Amino acid sequence: MGNKPKKVVVVGGVAGGATAAARIRRLSEECEIIMLEKGPHVSFSNCSLPYHLSGLIEDHEDLVMMKPDDFYSQYRIDARIYNEVTEIDRENKKVKIKNLVTGEEYEETYDKLVLSPGANPIVPPFEGLEKVNYFTIRNVVDVAKLNSFLTDSVSKDVVVIGGGFIGVEVCENLKLGGYNVTLIEATPQIMNVFDYDMVQILHKEMIDNDVNLIVNDKVMKFDKDEVILESSKSIHADAVVIAIGVTPDTRLAEKAGLKIGQTRAIEVNHNFQTSDPDIYAVGDAIEAYNTLTNKRARLALAGPALRQARSAADHMFGKSVDNRGVIGSSAIKLFDLNAAVTGLTENAIKINNLALNYDSVMIIPNDKVGLMPDANPIHFKLIFEVPTGRILGAQAIGRGNVDKRIDIIATLIRFNGTLYDLKEMELCYAPPFSTARDVVNVAALVGINVLENNYKQVHVSEVRDLVESGAYIIDVREKDEYEEGHLINAVNIPLSEIRNRTNEIPTDRPVYLHCRSSQRSYNALTALQHLGFTNLYNISGSFMGICYYEYFNDVTTNRKPIVTKYNFK
Amino acid sequence: MGNKPKKVVVVGGVAGGATAAARIRRLSEECEIIMLEKGPHVSFSNCSLPYHLSGLIEDHEDLVMMKPDDFYSQYRIDARIYNEVTEIDRENKKVKIKNLVTGEEYEETYDKLVLSPGANPIVPPFEGLEKVNYFTIRNVVDVAKLNSFLTDSVSKDVVVIGGGFIGVEVCENLKLGGYNVTLIEATPQIMNVFDYDMVQILHKEMIDNDVNLIVNDKVMKFDKDEVILESSKSIHADAVVIAIGVTPDTRLAEKAGLKIGQTRAIEVNHNFQTSDPDIYAVGDAIEAYNTLTNKRARLALAGPALRQARSAADHMFGKSVDNRGVIGSSAIKLFDLNAAVTGLTENAIKINNLALNYDSVMIIPNDKVGLMPDANPIHFKLIFEVPTGRILGAQAIGRGNVDKRIDIIATLIRFNGTLYDLKEMELCYAPPFSTARDVVNVAALVGINVLENNYKQVHVSEVRDLVESGAYIIDVREKDEYEEGHLINAVNIPLSEIRNRTNEIPTDRPVYLHCRSSQRSYNALTALQHLGFTNLYNISGSFMGICYYEYFNDVTTNRKPIVTKYNFK
Repeated sequence: MGNKPKKVVVVGGVAGGATAAARIRRLSEECEIIMLEKGPHVSFSNCSLPYHLSGLIEDHEDLVMMKPDDFYSQYRIDARIYNEVTEIDRENKKVKIKNLVTGEEYEETYDKLVLSPGANPIVPPFEGLEKVNYFTIRNVVDVAKLNSFLTDSVSKDVVVIGGGFIGVEVCENLKLGGYNVTLIEATPQIMNVFDYDMVQILHKEMIDNDVNLIVNDKVMKFDKDEVILESSKSIHADAVVIAIGVTPDTRLAEKAGLKIGQTRAIEVNHNFQTSDPDIYAVGDAIEAYNTLTNKRARLALAGPALRQARSAADHMFGKSVDNRGVIGSSAIKLFDLNAAVTGLTENAIKINNLALNYDSVMIIPNDKVGLMPDANPIHFKLIFEVPTGRILGAQAIGRGNVDKRIDIIATLIRFNGTLYDLKEMELCYAPPFSTARDVVNVAALVGINVLENNYKQVHVSEVRDLVESGAYIIDVREKDEYEEGHLINAVNIPLSEIRNRTNEIPTDRPVYLHCRSSQRSYNALTALQHLGFTNLYNISGSFMGICYYEYFNDVTTNRKPIVTKYNFK
Repeated sequence: MGNKPKKVVVVGGVAGGATAAARIRRLSEECEIIMLEKGPHVSFSNCSLPYHLSGLIEDHEDLVMMKPDDFYSQYRIDARIYNEVTEIDRENKKVKIKNLVTGEEYEETYDKLVLSPGANPIVPPFEGLEKVNYFTIRNVVDVAKLNSFLTDSVSKDVVVIGGGFIGVEVCENLKLGGYNVTLIEATPQIMNVFDYDMVQILHKEMIDNDVNLIVNDKVMKFDKDEVILESSKSIHADAVVIAIGVTPDTRLAEKAGLKIGQTRAIEVNHNFQTSDPDIYAVGDAIEAYNTLTNKRARLALAGPALRQARSAADHMFGKSVDNRGVIGSSAIKLFDLNAAVTGLTENAIKINNLALNYDSVMIIPNDKVGLMPDANPIHFKLIFEVPTGRILGAQAIGRGNVDKRIDIIATLIRFNGTLYDLKEMELCYAPPFSTARDVVNVAALVGINVLENNYKQVHVSEVRDLVESGAYIIDVREKDEYEEGHLINAVNIPLSEIRNRTNEIPTDRPVYLHCRSSQRSYNALTALQHLGFTNLYNISGSFMGICYYEYFNDVTTNRKPIVTKYNFK
């Protein structure tokens, strides 16, 4: 490891940089630590920025957690804002710095250098961009600027371009702040960390909350206060927020000849050292290693950034690093819904071309005992490897505690847990919190049935084709439930009658079963199987799942619904 | 395995019994299933009973999930209420049954028998018991009876005896229902699934909500509408709820000569078979195996009961059972607080005399990003093995999402996870849900510091002795915080000044440090250690932890507080 560093320079003073600096201080009282930030703030809450737009966080100054003075008084860290590192002189181990206020240029030597430059919002060279008031959201200044532009004028119409985390959170908070909001997403879905089937629930939440959500359409150009889409739609925009994505800020690293990875982010080794062992890099600017895809990947998340920063600091002081890579766990609140995801999605498996055999189940049980006044359905999708049952990922969306379920799965994935482990997981229970057999336990039981071929299933995404091709579908709910809305042409044979009406069920073609949330159809299906029926399929997600899956595309396109009436409860 | 059973009799129609019966039906359509329940209800929500008393569940009929008819129509299960099994004739494989309505006695044969008789409330032969209106809470009839007694009269004063789950939940709901409630607990603490230090937070919540909580005192006798305690206190009681505990209902099993375990519950093997392989037993009446104590133990929890029931059904149909024992995970809501626990507590380690080396840390970080309006401190205690760092248990109490943190730990314990695993756990994060470094990650980091002897700590339970013996304690909070309440005789040297004031700090005696929640005192301590101080201790839990720990005993006894003023924020 060599000698312990006597002087460390940290480039970037937000999550990764500030954490590295503080950790270094705890490892050494004598080390000189200089933290250089080109912007006006160190240590602000990146992830909280959108909440200023709704007024949930009223004063944008509150977004700043610590001032440079605090870093000195509490950590003896020399934090300098408006100081941009312009060049790294690796041979002589020094950096060239420009004071952006005075224009003065100066140098600092280093024993070790930590790069935490973050990433920059992508702003494509749209035609006519100068004709609109456009904004990006990356720091406190950005969000304060947008907020005062909106509050200082009569501007009401905001168009957000890009349906990722930032775009969606900005949308929600602008809407809650009272603006007319349009979200434009080029692909068929927002939030591509979720699968297409799950994300329909979020799409619905958007339109339920009066956000003008446009998917599958691209910005062609801008006119004066107008966004013109490729579909030739035109949307009035007092302000435009561009939230298409970010690109790692690698300028300094590239200029210094440090190795850049295939993802165009800084390449680091196990210890978070760049190709120069005296230079560490952490946070949004680096490549992380995803242990489920076995690929290097960019992952702009705060949790991993903090761990990387701590590890880099540890390593330069001779401690070994426990780099376990990442699996990708994230969460988002969207109006009344919470959504969380961990591990692999079907999207990710396809995009990464992974040679994985997998299957998935979708269930919609209550998140707590149904008698509790705030019990709500939770949409839960579990993805597992076939034939091992190893759990690969999960997604959960609902009004209640979805993050808890995802964190359980994230923990399980870290230990290569299987459906059998999850089935036996002993979780804390009382009626205000969950059910005696929690959502995740139920998902495991259903997954095991699929894994063990106890029955066959089809997914909600396949139901439209089934209906349109005239498949034989049995709705096993009671008659009154059926009459409140059902699949077109579905036959109603309630579970309570099915054993007496088996003669009505064809044996020469596949039969598909569903109820409200697949519990009764599962019972119906096992009974029919025992009675000799062999060509049965359970519709995973059942009627509630189908309604959520179909709704957004039904109401935003001209296609004909496959249900007589939606039922979301 | 032999032949598959053609006729199964299930004794008991609530959680375990109903689950076993339903599972059997899914495994076999032809098996005859008879479910015998001596009470008026099958399949009611045991754990929800107390919520009828506050009116949260208005109609007690709602507590009943399924009627006998539903069992027949949906599962072809012959569910018979008011039918008590009085005897098992093991030799001839039949049970004797008494119809409690008609008085008729009859027999049913069985291939397999499942016992799920539950447990009965303990009612000691108190002197004068007949002089009060006393109640127990075990089923829908019990709770409906208490509720109508209270609502039909002018009764306002209720005394609850016993501070376990039922006692505490009944207290809370009676209080929310508008009654004057006294809770009497014979030991020094309620809820002994929590440690004494953590439970003080619940004690405080009780008195904050105007429950007359009396600990360390026993019922001596009853007079007319009066409870007389051993301390000679006398409390007026229009109604008395006896919630001292339950005893497994083993009468039938004992009479049949089935083996009863050392805990006085029915002994079962891996497959949940009793000493008669044709008789299974599940639920509150059996002994579970605790994999952390390596002992058989009673565990009256719904989750394990459902798993046992499913396993018993599986086994009688030739499927192998995945019996992983129990670790004990539970949760309770108490007014504005949520509390959850998993694995071993210090209490449990001591009571079970376990030869375990362990240590613990207590932290009180925010449960979500501090800028979020509903961010709240979460009290989190983590217990781990020394020197391995293997996680043994955790307890969490707070207004927010404590159950999630405990479920993560429960999952980790199942995989023999260590502090090092927990530190790296990648959980989902967004400001409305948690912090980028979640409570559980922070607890792991603190635990590792203790495990690796990076610094020494003392626990909140040791602070009173320190103060009273004149120990040198430094409060490193800022002056204004100190002045709002501090430990008597603590010296205030803010973190921001401590490096300049080291000459004030003695080197000839131990020095104890604290701040609000131990983050700043940790930074102060590491700085001082690097500066050559060797005899330093961090006070785990810091000032907030001390205030919560001391408050209840301060205000309910005459002892002198060790703080000038409490601060709970």
